[in-house]
Parts: sequence; C-alpha cells; structure tokens
Amino acid sequence: MENPQRLNVQSHPEKLEAQWVVGFVDGEGCFYVGINPHPEMSCQFQVLPEFTVVQHRRDVQLLHALKRFFGCGVVRQNHEDRMAYRVRGLNHLTERIVPFFEKHPLKSKKRVDFARFRKILHLMNQGNHLKAEGIEEIRAIASVMNTGSERSRRNRAKFLVG
Amino acid sequence: MENPQRLNVQSHPEKLEAQWVVGFVDGEGCFYVGINPHPEMSCQFQVLPEFTVVQHRRDVQLLHALKRFFGCGVVRQNHEDRMAYRVRGLNHLTERIVPFFEKHPLKSKKRVDFARFRKILHLMNQGNHLKAEGIEEIRAIASVMNTGSERSRRNRAKFLVG
Repeated sequence: MENPQRLNVQSHPEKLEAQWVVGFVDGEGCFYVGINPHPEMSCQFQVLPEFTVVQHRRDVQLLHALKRFFGCGVVRQNHEDRMAYRVRGLNHLTERIVPFFEKHPLKSKKRVDFARFRKILHLMNQGNHLKAEGIEEIRAIASVMNTGSERSRRNRAKFLVG
Repeated sequence: MENPQRLNVQSHPEKLEAQWVVGFVDGEGCFYVGINPHPEMSCQFQVLPEFTVVQHRRDVQLLHALKRFFGCGVVRQNHEDRMAYRVRGLNHLTERIVPFFEKHPLKSKKRVDFARFRKILHLMNQGNHLKAEGIEEIRAIASVMNTGSERSRRNRAKFLVG
C-alpha cells in the first residue's frame, strides 16, 4: 500500500508564489561565500559562493518546491535530520538567484548579505577570483557576511564539514 | 542628530504582502499553547495560547510590520539579542490570526500545529478550558504541538522564563 502522504506530495506539487519565497528566504535562507585553500589553483584559493535554505526533513517537499521554482540547485542531507536546498554554480547563481532577488527584494537585513554576495559574483564573473588581489577583495567582502546569525553559522559549519 | 536608520524605518514603514507573511511564518513562526498551574482558577490551570515570531533585533522592524499587518499583538525583547512579536489574547488570536491562516494556508508542516492551535482556541471559546475534562482535552492536543522544532522549544523556553 502506498504512503498516502507521499502520494499527496507527488500529485499536488507545491506551487510557490514569489512573495512566499521572499518571506521564507528572509527567514531561512543564507547567502554564503567560502574561500578555501586550493594548492592546485594559481592563486592558491578557491572561491565557493552558495545560496542555501535549510529545513527539518519533515519539510523537504518545500526544498524540492524551491528547486523547481528556481529551476536549479540540489536538495541534499545537511546534518542529522536537516536537509538543504543548495545552489552553487556561478551561472545559476548569476542568472537565476540574483535576478529574482533583484526583482523581489528581501525585507530583512539579509538583503545586505545578498548585496555583498551579488558583488562577489560580479567580481568572479570578471575573473577576479583567479588573481591574488581579487581574492583579497573578495575575502574582505565575505568576511563581513553572515556575521549576525548564530543559526547561519551553525548550519554552514555542519554543511561544509559534511 | 537623529539616527538615520530609525528615520528610515519611520518614514518608509515596511508594507507586507500576505504571501510574504505566510512564507516568513512558515520559516520563523510558532503556534504554542502553554498550560500553567494556577491555584486561583477553579480548574487549577491556566491555558495560554500564543502566536510568536522571533527575530534578531537587527530585524525588529519586520516584527513591527507584522504587528501593523495583523493589527494586534506586541513586540518585546525575547532573550539576549532576540526580539519577539507575540499575540496572546483569545479574541485577537480567534478573530485576526486564525482567519488569516485559514485564508492563506501555511505550506510547511507548521500548518499541522496551526490546526491544533485552532482546535484549542475553539475549545476555549466554548469555555472548555475552565473545566477539568476540557483542560485534559486541551493538554492532549497541546502535548503533540511543536514537537519537531528544536528552535521553537529553545525560543519558547527562554520566552516563558523571561
């Protein structure tokens, strides 16, 4: 016998409205730029921008709905009973995530992190992340992102370890 | 000299759309029913339903915007650097909060807690919270609310102590 809840999710996929997405991301979203040592790259560092939304697994259908909404990204286990929707590719971030939040601005202070995130993507699209001075500029911007949210830090730390 | 940020908040109060409120509450809201010993009441217990949204103080303007949106509730310090928008009165919960989320359903599993919350408000509006058997029915429903969210429990625990 099929799981009736699963059947329900499959036959009625969640349709999201733009303002719902903005409100949910104001609450649960995170714009983050990791800068990791990478000896094989000419500038010794790899810049990894990512947009993530973390939820308890009971609401994983919302993460899949976000994936359908943006038409990119992946849904993966985060840590323990939490799942994450994550977009990492520079093209998808630049062409899908950024234009959406430019058209539908965040209402929380997370919009400040979004502006920094957008600036870093702009620098990367110009190739600055491949030069030492560009890395330093990106590092300076990234260092003041996500400074206020204990939850962001916790989720991110587990995410990068996992 | 006036604080320019404060001036900005005052001159451009945040206008919220219904779907943004749903998305934000899907992420950050909590429907909770406390049942506290109260020797002066005939049934020895007091039932305290509340709807809360907790945010870091940097986004307190969003909590004030929610207060304006619903036309009820208070914004208070929660604990440390966190603030809470809170609606407690039975009338305001029954006449303003419940009808909004009936018209604009939550998309997360929080809607299950909302349904239990609405059921308890219904029992209270019938006076069941003033009788021993009513208290037991309410306690049974309340005991399975907010069971999944570590954050809800943490915020609530601090909130009730404060």
